[in-house]
Amino acid sequence: MKIDGKAYRTIWVANDGWSVEIIDQTLLPHRFETLRLATADQAAHAIKSMQVRGAPLIGATAAYGIALAMRADPSDEALEKAHAMLLATRPTAINLRWALDDMRAHLRNRKREERVAAAYTRAAEICDEDVATNEAIGRHGLALIEKAAAGKKGPVNILTHCNAGWLACVDWGTALAPIYMAHDKGIPLHVWVDETRPRNQGASLTAWELGRHGVTHKVIVDNAGGHLMQHGLVDLCIVGTDRTTRNGDVCNKIGTYLKALAAHDNGVPFYVALPHSTIDWTLASGKDIPIEERDPAEVTAIQGRMKDGTVATISLTPEASGAANYGFDVTPARLVSALVTERGSCPASEAGLLSLYPERKKK
Amino acid sequence: MKIDGKAYRTIWVANDGWSVEIIDQTLLPHRFETLRLATADQAAHAIKSMQVRGAPLIGATAAYGIALAMRADPSDEALEKAHAMLLATRPTAINLRWALDDMRAHLRNRKREERVAAAYTRAAEICDEDVATNEAIGRHGLALIEKAAAGKKGPVNILTHCNAGWLACVDWGTALAPIYMAHDKGIPLHVWVDETRPRNQGASLTAWELGRHGVTHKVIVDNAGGHLMQHGLVDLCIVGTDRTTRNGDVCNKIGTYLKALAAHDNGVPFYVALPHSTIDWTLASGKDIPIEERDPAEVTAIQGRMKDGTVATISLTPEASGAANYGFDVTPARLVSALVTERGSCPASEAGLLSLYPERKKK
Repeated sequence: MKIDGKAYRTIWVANDGWSVEIIDQTLLPHRFETLRLATADQAAHAIKSMQVRGAPLIGATAAYGIALAMRADPSDEALEKAHAMLLATRPTAINLRWALDDMRAHLRNRKREERVAAAYTRAAEICDEDVATNEAIGRHGLALIEKAAAGKKGPVNILTHCNAGWLACVDWGTALAPIYMAHDKGIPLHVWVDETRPRNQGASLTAWELGRHGVTHKVIVDNAGGHLMQHGLVDLCIVGTDRTTRNGDVCNKIGTYLKALAAHDNGVPFYVALPHSTIDWTLASGKDIPIEERDPAEVTAIQGRMKDGTVATISLTPEASGAANYGFDVTPARLVSALVTERGSCPASEAGLLSLYPERKKK
Repeated sequence: MKIDGKAYRTIWVANDGWSVEIIDQTLLPHRFETLRLATADQAAHAIKSMQVRGAPLIGATAAYGIALAMRADPSDEALEKAHAMLLATRPTAINLRWALDDMRAHLRNRKREERVAAAYTRAAEICDEDVATNEAIGRHGLALIEKAAAGKKGPVNILTHCNAGWLACVDWGTALAPIYMAHDKGIPLHVWVDETRPRNQGASLTAWELGRHGVTHKVIVDNAGGHLMQHGLVDLCIVGTDRTTRNGDVCNKIGTYLKALAAHDNGVPFYVALPHSTIDWTLASGKDIPIEERDPAEVTAIQGRMKDGTVATISLTPEASGAANYGFDVTPARLVSALVTERGSCPASEAGLLSLYPERKKK
C-alpha cells in the first residue's frame, strides 16, 4: 500500500541485498521510522517487542529471521537454534510456527552452501503468498462494497474494528483489502474506525494506514458504533479474525461481538475477511476457543503523544483499582452475514465453508 | 458515601456557616482535593469547568450559587443576574434550569433581609430531596440485587456503564445507590466498571468512588462486557439515564445500547435507575431525542497520570485523522428489563411508568 504516494510493504530486503527492513509499528501513529534487521536476534526482538505484529507479518519476519541466521551460519545446529529462538517470541501465534516449520523443512535436506539463497527465496515466497491471498480476499470483498455502493448516493460508510490492514500483513490486509481496492477504483468511501481499546490498534494503526493511503475516515470510540448503525450511518461492517471455527463462529479482537449484535439489530451486513489459514477445522464451535487474558496494565494505562512530540504512557484508573483484560471474544455465526476468503464469500456455517473448501469434507 | 471511612456528600456548607465546599472532580481519580466556593462566580466556574458534574449535583451547586449571590447583594437585580449567569454555564442540563427557577421563585416575593437565610435553607432542601430520592431508588434496586444474590453462590457480578454514582448527585447516586446499599448490608458484590470512553467517567469516577467506599470492582474496556455476559460473568447490569421517554426508551451515555444488546442476547437482566425528574413525559419515544455531538478532541486525546503524579493529556490518533464524538445513544425499551425509580420498579413501557406515576395519565 502507499504511504503518502510511495508504495510500501511491511517487510522488505534492503538495497544491500541481504538485510531486512521493517516499519517500527510501536511508534505509530506518532512517528514513521523504518528499522534494519541484520541478525536473527534482531528479527526475534522485532517480533517480541511488537515492532512487527499481526499474524501474517510475524510469520514473514520469522522466515527472514531464519534467512539471516543461515547467512551467519548455515549449519543444522544454527537452523535449529534460530527456529527455537524465533518460536519463543510469541508462542501463541499460529502463523509463526507455520512459517518456521516451513522454512526448516525447506532447508534441512539441502547442502549448506545452498541454504542462504534458498532461505531468502522461500522467505520471499511466503511474503508473496500472503500478498496474493489478501489480494484475492480484497477482490471478493470489493464485490460486496460495489453492491452497497450501487444501492445508495454518497459514500459507502464502512465500520471496522481493530487493525486487519496491511500493517498486520505483508500488504493489502484482510478486512481492509476490499476497502483499498474500492478506494483505488474510485468508489466514494468513508470508514468509521473503532479505536479498539485497550491497545487502540484502530486509532493508532488503522487510522494511520487509511490516512496515509488517502482513504477518508473518522476515528470513533468503541461505544459509538451502535448509535451510528441505529441512525443509518453504517452501510456495512467488515472485520478480520484470529480464528474461525468449522461452524463459522468468529474469534476476533474483544468488542467485535458487540458490533455484530448492533449490526444484526439494525439490518447492517456484518462481514468477516479471512485467509484459509485462519480457519480452525478442528474446532466444532467458538465455545471451544480459549480466550487469552492479558496484562491489566493495557487497560489501566495508555500510550500517546505529548505536546512536545514525545511518546508517553499515562495511567487512567485509581491506583487501587484493578482491571480485567480479555483479548478476544467470539461472535456467533448467526450474527455474521458472510465470510470473505481468498476463494470467495460464503455463509458463516460449516456448509458454507465446505462449499469453498470441499477438500475439508470429512470422509 | 464514604471516602476511606469518612462520610461525604459532593457539596456542603463549610464550617464558617456560609461558604460552600465541593470535591474538585476534574482531578479524580488522580488527586482528591476539595474546593471552597465563596461567590456565585466561583460556583458558575465550578459548573462550567466540570469541577462538579452530573445533573443533580449541577442543580445543587447552582442553588448554592444563588445563595452566595444573595449574600453579596439580595436585590432583585442581583437575583436575576445570578440566575442568568449560572444558567449559561451548561445550557442543556435540565436540573440546572429547574433548580435555578425554583430558587428564584422561592426568593422573589420575599423581603430582602430574609433572602439570604431563605436561599441557604432552600438550597439545603434541594440537596436533601436529591439524597432522599436516590436513597429510595437504592432501596428498590437493592431488592433486585437481593434476588440475584439469593439465586447464586459467590458474589453478585454487576456491570455498570459511565458514572451514575454519588459523585454525579449529592449522595448515593442512582445506578450505584443499590450497589452501596447491598454492600453496606453485607451482600458479596463484584462490580465490572466500563471505562466509558471517551471521557472515561467509569475508569476515573465510578472506580474511584466504589474503591473509596470499599466495594470490590474491576475496570474493563467498553469492548469487554459482551464477552463477560457470554461467559456467565455478569448477573445483572444497572445504569443511569439522562432522559427516559414516555414509552420507556432510555437515553444514556454512548455505548449503553451495546451493553443492553449483549444483556438481551445472554438473558442477563438490564436495569435502568432514574429519578422521576429524568422522565420526559412529552416525548413519545427515544427517536425524538436529539443526540449531542461533542468535541472530537475527547476522542483523539485522553487525560491521565504521569509517573511523577502530574496529570497530563496525550494524543491517541494520527495528526491527520478526524474523529466523531456522539455523547449518548438510545436503548430501546424492549431491551430494558425494568426501570427503577424512587417509587419502585416497573416495566420499561408507558403502562409501566404510568402504574408508578398515575398522575401523568392523559385525560
